Amino acid sequence: MNFTKEEYKNRLKKVQKSMQDKGIDVLISQDPSNMNYLTGYDAWSFYYAQCVIVHINADEPLCFVRDQDAGGAYIKTYLKDENIIKYGEKYIHNWPLHPYEALTDIIKERKWDKLSIGVEMDSHYFTAYCYEKIKSGLPNAKISDCERLVNWVRVVKSDTEINLMKAASLIVQTGMKKAFEVINPGVRQCDAVSEIQAALIKGTPEFGGDYASIVPMLPTGKGTSASHLTWTEDKFVEGEATIIELSGSHKKYHCPMARTVLLGKADQLKIDTMKKTNEALQAGIDAIKPGKTADDVAQAFWKVLDKYGIEKTSRTGYSIGIGYPPDWGEHTLNISKGDMTILEPNITFHMIAVMQFGNWGVEASEAIRVTDQGSELFCNFSKDLHIK
Amino acid sequence: MNFTKEEYKNRLKKVQKSMQDKGIDVLISQDPSNMNYLTGYDAWSFYYAQCVIVHINADEPLCFVRDQDAGGAYIKTYLKDENIIKYGEKYIHNWPLHPYEALTDIIKERKWDKLSIGVEMDSHYFTAYCYEKIKSGLPNAKISDCERLVNWVRVVKSDTEINLMKAASLIVQTGMKKAFEVINPGVRQCDAVSEIQAALIKGTPEFGGDYASIVPMLPTGKGTSASHLTWTEDKFVEGEATIIELSGSHKKYHCPMARTVLLGKADQLKIDTMKKTNEALQAGIDAIKPGKTADDVAQAFWKVLDKYGIEKTSRTGYSIGIGYPPDWGEHTLNISKGDMTILEPNITFHMIAVMQFGNWGVEASEAIRVTDQGSELFCNFSKDLHIK
Repeated sequence: MNFTKEEYKNRLKKVQKSMQDKGIDVLISQDPSNMNYLTGYDAWSFYYAQCVIVHINADEPLCFVRDQDAGGAYIKTYLKDENIIKYGEKYIHNWPLHPYEALTDIIKERKWDKLSIGVEMDSHYFTAYCYEKIKSGLPNAKISDCERLVNWVRVVKSDTEINLMKAASLIVQTGMKKAFEVINPGVRQCDAVSEIQAALIKGTPEFGGDYASIVPMLPTGKGTSASHLTWTEDKFVEGEATIIELSGSHKKYHCPMARTVLLGKADQLKIDTMKKTNEALQAGIDAIKPGKTADDVAQAFWKVLDKYGIEKTSRTGYSIGIGYPPDWGEHTLNISKGDMTILEPNITFHMIAVMQFGNWGVEASEAIRVTDQGSELFCNFSKDLHIK
Repeated sequence: MNFTKEEYKNRLKKVQKSMQDKGIDVLISQDPSNMNYLTGYDAWSFYYAQCVIVHINADEPLCFVRDQDAGGAYIKTYLKDENIIKYGEKYIHNWPLHPYEALTDIIKERKWDKLSIGVEMDSHYFTAYCYEKIKSGLPNAKISDCERLVNWVRVVKSDTEINLMKAASLIVQTGMKKAFEVINPGVRQCDAVSEIQAALIKGTPEFGGDYASIVPMLPTGKGTSASHLTWTEDKFVEGEATIIELSGSHKKYHCPMARTVLLGKADQLKIDTMKKTNEALQAGIDAIKPGKTADDVAQAFWKVLDKYGIEKTSRTGYSIGIGYPPDWGEHTLNISKGDMTILEPNITFHMIAVMQFGNWGVEASEAIRVTDQGSELFCNFSKDLHIK
């Protein structure tokens, strides 16, 4: 177990308090990060329906997994065996049968079927079919969107969690150094990523690397004007820029980082744009303080962009912590104008600035912790355009 | 582009034919593998809502992506620019706003809102919220589950697709050889996986490796009795077994493989169980022929297990091809008793046998193509327990 039983119990209590505030008696949480947060469960089984069920008065959550995955739940969670609930193989990709039929049976057996039940309406893996099975199986329940209740509890980290993120920050810096070393003209992108991924998974002698919830993104050349492109087997080209977006992961906690590398001759426009981007990032970072809002940070960031006449429509940051594919964002606070979330100590977010102009772009980011006085960066790594 | 425009057009026609059979006028397909199959779109953007929209009479699908991802769609798809439809940043994690509000606007603008609309009810990423937005935004449409319509079209591969899977098979064999080499007593699991992942992503000099839709799974020791466990930073232990489940990926096409390695002294029980497992797999493989069913293969497999009194409740195979996290299965045919899907040439599946007994287990698998006469294995790699 990565945390004491006391820490898990504390998380449960916070979730139950939030359930009370929202009038939810039973919570069905399918987000793998939330399942990990509430029970310790950690396995690549989220391609089937599974979930954690929290009753407002329960001492422990229930972990609902496929029969075959119960072994993993016994090993990975802090729960008593009786709270690991298995469903049969007949429900696996054998529609119209579906695991959530077994789930609603369990809720009925426990006589929770007339209660107010909260679900994660827009959580990855909570499919429309899961929802329909809950509605048809529990016609007497009052079903509502819990609105990322557990995600919001996750927003403020414990010191133990911060330490895992600090380990991840050492790992991502190792990965980025490797990227700067191996990205060279004539090298296949896959050969470079092979070495970057090796560094991220190896980790450090003290802290082993885990899989990140997103693979390295590596838009290059014209691709730097686009987002979310991964590597190909094409070769890096002299004179072209490459954006590298990575995360270190340690025990599922993430520390992401983006940097831009330029192969060959210095390009003044790109150098200047990178400087302006970093000035904006720094202005945002300087605005971070407990009691300030995400909006305050965004305003400071965009003020610099406005000064330079750079237009950027996408948000420039989001909360981070535990992550499973496909996302390391926590789906709570955004660093964007109008997000009035108040910053508290140990809120952690990734402030990321991608600037795209027609057929080129540059990008940099910092993973940040809100402290008692202001903020600290998880990494210590120049954001300048890396020219080689 | 990995395929000719003709191949994409041919895929579209097959999908439209199936839409006609099912009485669907407009299809909304969110599965990233289906999006790739129908348009070529390939980016790690599936953590936001996006989709392909197919009208039954259209010459091309529409690709509906986030504003920021349009650049990637211009680069990766074969579509005319006008068929790449962007939605604004205001919909990004800014609930109750949601990208599918923009989607329903587009459908209304095109006057498709009174038609019969098919959705992928249990597809990863098609959340309950997506579904609710479609229902409330299109109250006059007849909305139904398309029941994995595109997945079923994907079941029979073209020769070009088979060649990509053959490239992936070379890559997975490289990865498994590396695993056999680096798994040793006293080595941290993360250090071994670092080298295995490096091999899988590097690929071969001819075929670069892509990310697989599942990271290497590596249950070890007691963990071999459980499923879907990934690596930790613990060290491998002399005398313990480790199950390795990997996939090679080339241009998003997969070839998975599972093997078991035992460190230290030969353990007759494990050797014998592995032999029985492989005898069962071989019996299944021998039963493969066009015109036979998935059930026929399953019956032949379980007949051997029954002979030895080995109980196995989970399915023993599933269709494979394009894959994105979290799954490389196609969600169509299962190799399990009662699946009456008829095998045709160029159907491809992963036949995987995991045997679990209390606190230990063994596993092996083959990726298989149905041929005109019978079947062929994608890999040529001993399934014996690898003792070192």
